[in-house]
Amino acid sequence: MRPIVRQGTGSIAILCALLFAGIDAGAQSDPLPSWNDGPAKKAIVEFVQVTTTQGSPKFVPPAERVATFDQDGTLWVEHPMYSQVIYCLGRVPAVVKAKPELANVEPFKTVMSGNREAMARLTKDDLIKIAAATLTGMSVETFKADVMKWIAEAKDPRWKRPYTELTYQPMQEVLKYLRASGYRTYIVTGGGQDFVRVYAEQVYGMPPEQVVGTAGGTKYGYDKSGRPFLTKEPRLVLNDDNAGKPEGIHLMIGRRPNAAFGNSIGDRQMLEYTGAGDGARLMMLVLHDDATREYAYGPAQGLPDSKVGTFTQALYKEAMKKGWTVISMKNDWKRIFSFEP
Amino acid sequence: MRPIVRQGTGSIAILCALLFAGIDAGAQSDPLPSWNDGPAKKAIVEFVQVTTTQGSPKFVPPAERVATFDQDGTLWVEHPMYSQVIYCLGRVPAVVKAKPELANVEPFKTVMSGNREAMARLTKDDLIKIAAATLTGMSVETFKADVMKWIAEAKDPRWKRPYTELTYQPMQEVLKYLRASGYRTYIVTGGGQDFVRVYAEQVYGMPPEQVVGTAGGTKYGYDKSGRPFLTKEPRLVLNDDNAGKPEGIHLMIGRRPNAAFGNSIGDRQMLEYTGAGDGARLMMLVLHDDATREYAYGPAQGLPDSKVGTFTQALYKEAMKKGWTVISMKNDWKRIFSFEP
Repeated sequence: MRPIVRQGTGSIAILCALLFAGIDAGAQSDPLPSWNDGPAKKAIVEFVQVTTTQGSPKFVPPAERVATFDQDGTLWVEHPMYSQVIYCLGRVPAVVKAKPELANVEPFKTVMSGNREAMARLTKDDLIKIAAATLTGMSVETFKADVMKWIAEAKDPRWKRPYTELTYQPMQEVLKYLRASGYRTYIVTGGGQDFVRVYAEQVYGMPPEQVVGTAGGTKYGYDKSGRPFLTKEPRLVLNDDNAGKPEGIHLMIGRRPNAAFGNSIGDRQMLEYTGAGDGARLMMLVLHDDATREYAYGPAQGLPDSKVGTFTQALYKEAMKKGWTVISMKNDWKRIFSFEP
Repeated sequence: MRPIVRQGTGSIAILCALLFAGIDAGAQSDPLPSWNDGPAKKAIVEFVQVTTTQGSPKFVPPAERVATFDQDGTLWVEHPMYSQVIYCLGRVPAVVKAKPELANVEPFKTVMSGNREAMARLTKDDLIKIAAATLTGMSVETFKADVMKWIAEAKDPRWKRPYTELTYQPMQEVLKYLRASGYRTYIVTGGGQDFVRVYAEQVYGMPPEQVVGTAGGTKYGYDKSGRPFLTKEPRLVLNDDNAGKPEGIHLMIGRRPNAAFGNSIGDRQMLEYTGAGDGARLMMLVLHDDATREYAYGPAQGLPDSKVGTFTQALYKEAMKKGWTVISMKNDWKRIFSFEP
């Protein structure tokens, strides 16, 4: 301050000019530099403008601004396997070591065999059994420490990089843009709430209280020294997928989102619930149609819905009908990962 | 700005002086004017100072600052009956009208009789049946609208005022002081999450996402026009009392609180869990020992624990042993309600 004061009022005017120039530059710079111009980018920018401009008929007070994001396939890579499934499979040897009787029981036997083809055929029920065995029975602190260790070391086989680097740079920009516009951003994931919370703050700037996911119960108890702790239990409290997403949003946030982002049939109800509110609404679906830079699956594969699993033709048609915006990774995103040139 | 710029640099110095004077005045003014000087007030102020002063060995980064508050008996009057119980009892005639077969079934028959003595003898199981019948089966919007209507009209029989005016002014000051010090404040109540969320923002400045309470499940469905909505179900997702409070805190917040405020055995585990963390900790219990200005119950009644129910001698002894601070309404609070002179 001192030099400016010494130089008198002329400098105040310069200071003001600089300040206002800064504000103008901020408003005019592109908040979404990794997005190509097109309907998807336009939809995001227009939504932010109409909901945050004072006097706009669709203005939303800051306290009510909520945007929810699916994680797997929406914020980071989900193929060929959810990272949490890879974590669970990797935990199986430790679980079998602690309970040797599991070594000859399916699905643990298949996982211990190391036969990748057999593992790829594990059913959803098999995976639920594996999740229950590998994600429960320990304290929440022990679990957190184990996930932290894994996430720091594990690498995706295609990119040879930590999973935490495989977040979509354009979506990171959307998160930042919405936050800078007064939105509270939430992850609403079918993945494990405790699992995602471990890294969400560092990776997405998403604090634990803004991560909603599939959650098991915990049990309060005491260690030998009388110190209380919570043990993770194999008791489902919230199945945060499909209809469970709006139910989880009501439970954990208590407000209907103004904007929601997903990529699969597991996100259908979240987008529908978001769209059923008043005022401006933004519903977006990430379409994986870029086999070169990431993957092409869902409608981009040209397969019947029965073979597709997640982002179906039926969902694509519903998006068209309801005015949800489909984000084409191939066409809408200049780059996909931050490590790309 | 213009007059100041016109008058030259002298005014800048005055402006700076005014600004700094403002900051000083803010720092020195009493954030807890309804509290008498004493160990309780001192504990709060010292906790805030050591956790928010940069360079303090017990400094807590703003993102990690969490304080949790029980509601009934901690933030507002809970005697002679929880306000939510009064709401549920008042809803019984409408429920019986919709389902006439309940008129001759207990506990509904007793409630319909209007016999206050008989109603006072209803057991906890009776109240759970009444809660399930009166708090579920409708959409979350219908429920919210009904509670809003009730809370605007219902009055406490002793003070002849809306329940929302029967919040403790000293605790309102603690909420504001902690928020101004960068703490996120949460209600963590054994009461219904959906019920408390209806008025918590207006009454305590507590947004819905910062209200954790006993929660039932919801079911996603569609009305005749195809619009999706959530129906409240009689399925318990979180029993947010006793050990359920730390479990609820883990589920909904995902961080251990730095400070926790309660008044009864239902808050014991929340305070214990809060106290088991590292660094500075603040655990406080409101003791209802002022029969003149509010009520005297718990240890203040001089009855054996078996007759006391909520704030027991055993809890009082545990507080002493663990260094929790007991707030005496009689001695620590200059005034109890904002409407007092």
